Amino acid sequence: MSRRHTSGHYDNLLRELKDRLLAMSGLTEQSLRDATRALVERSPSLAREVIDRDDQIDRLELEIDDLCLRTLALEQPVASDLRFLGAVLKIVRDVERIGDIGANTAKRVSELLEEPEFKPLVDLPIMSRTAQQIFRTSLDAFVNADADLAQQVIRDDRMLDDMYEQLLRELLTYMMEDPRTISRSLKFVFIAKGFERVGDHAANIAEMVVFLVRGQDIRHGTSADR
Amino acid sequence: MSRRHTSGHYDNLLRELKDRLLAMSGLTEQSLRDATRALVERSPSLAREVIDRDDQIDRLELEIDDLCLRTLALEQPVASDLRFLGAVLKIVRDVERIGDIGANTAKRVSELLEEPEFKPLVDLPIMSRTAQQIFRTSLDAFVNADADLAQQVIRDDRMLDDMYEQLLRELLTYMMEDPRTISRSLKFVFIAKGFERVGDHAANIAEMVVFLVRGQDIRHGTSADR
Repeated sequence: MSRRHTSGHYDNLLRELKDRLLAMSGLTEQSLRDATRALVERSPSLAREVIDRDDQIDRLELEIDDLCLRTLALEQPVASDLRFLGAVLKIVRDVERIGDIGANTAKRVSELLEEPEFKPLVDLPIMSRTAQQIFRTSLDAFVNADADLAQQVIRDDRMLDDMYEQLLRELLTYMMEDPRTISRSLKFVFIAKGFERVGDHAANIAEMVVFLVRGQDIRHGTSADR
Repeated sequence: MSRRHTSGHYDNLLRELKDRLLAMSGLTEQSLRDATRALVERSPSLAREVIDRDDQIDRLELEIDDLCLRTLALEQPVASDLRFLGAVLKIVRDVERIGDIGANTAKRVSELLEEPEFKPLVDLPIMSRTAQQIFRTSLDAFVNADADLAQQVIRDDRMLDDMYEQLLRELLTYMMEDPRTISRSLKFVFIAKGFERVGDHAANIAEMVVFLVRGQDIRHGTSADR
């Protein structure tokens, strides 16, 4: 019932899908980076930019969805392409959620910038960079169909979980020592939790890559989605 | 290129998809309910049951994905069915995430049960019930293709956001008054945040229903996904 595609047309569609997904994830990564930079450099205008950028990321999700569904409808893809398109529909959602995390981080940063600094910012930027890198790697693994790289992402996500736990313990100490810092510390906790969730989304994407490449579903076999 | 389906076979497939999605979301809702009950009744064994149940929910996601992709491959559905199948692939992911929230809630409850009680549990069970109800309604709206009901879900999600903000403020007061409660209070904050995210997922599902029924994409038009 399916037919093999030897035409360049279909290949072009798939390439366009990958390109748009990469463009979307590039913007999303930039949001994480800029939201963190807004905190470190105490720049409310940069935080504002990130919040405004979220609409653009959301529009890209809708466009990619649309292109996926049109491809499904018109091209009647074979089994492996079908799995690929199904994966794109899911991955684009993870990317969009990471975009939301970027925008939410920027919102919390805006609030924090109205209050005095209270803690040297060392761990949080490192955690943000790690999250960005894991996310980028998961997309690289997807577009290159690289299952080994995907496995690496799943391992690295656990590192991010550990960084979060450590930061949480540190912030708890601050809160207990000086209850006046509780409200601010909580905002840091939520920002860190966001970065930890970026890792979870990246691990989800990576599990999907392993599934696509090896035809083996390891989703839910790891503890990635927490 | 697509063909109309007048056969009962295809209708049966769609019905089976809906049934499985409902079975999965029923289990997921039960996890939220039981995790909350485990906290109120201080039952570690009930919390354990919820954690164990997550595997079953995860397996259902994989089965539904598989059925969706096979239907796409074999039935070459027309445009509206295609949109429906694309929506199922996305919705099943939201449901699975809600399942994770249930399991994570149960894990935090297990930790809390090892510590003494410190606060009357009034708001959290109410918030949990509201989240369950919004979630159930979003699925009802989906299987009945009821856009009005979906709009209701989107409105109700905002109520859940308000409940979360109020609970957060209350817990902040506890923490400031007695820093020894900070660690436990934080667990309550995370549980409440989980329920708030259930509402976000339900709102996502509801936006997809409006899209399916009215052919109008209101995703990202609301502030549902935060």
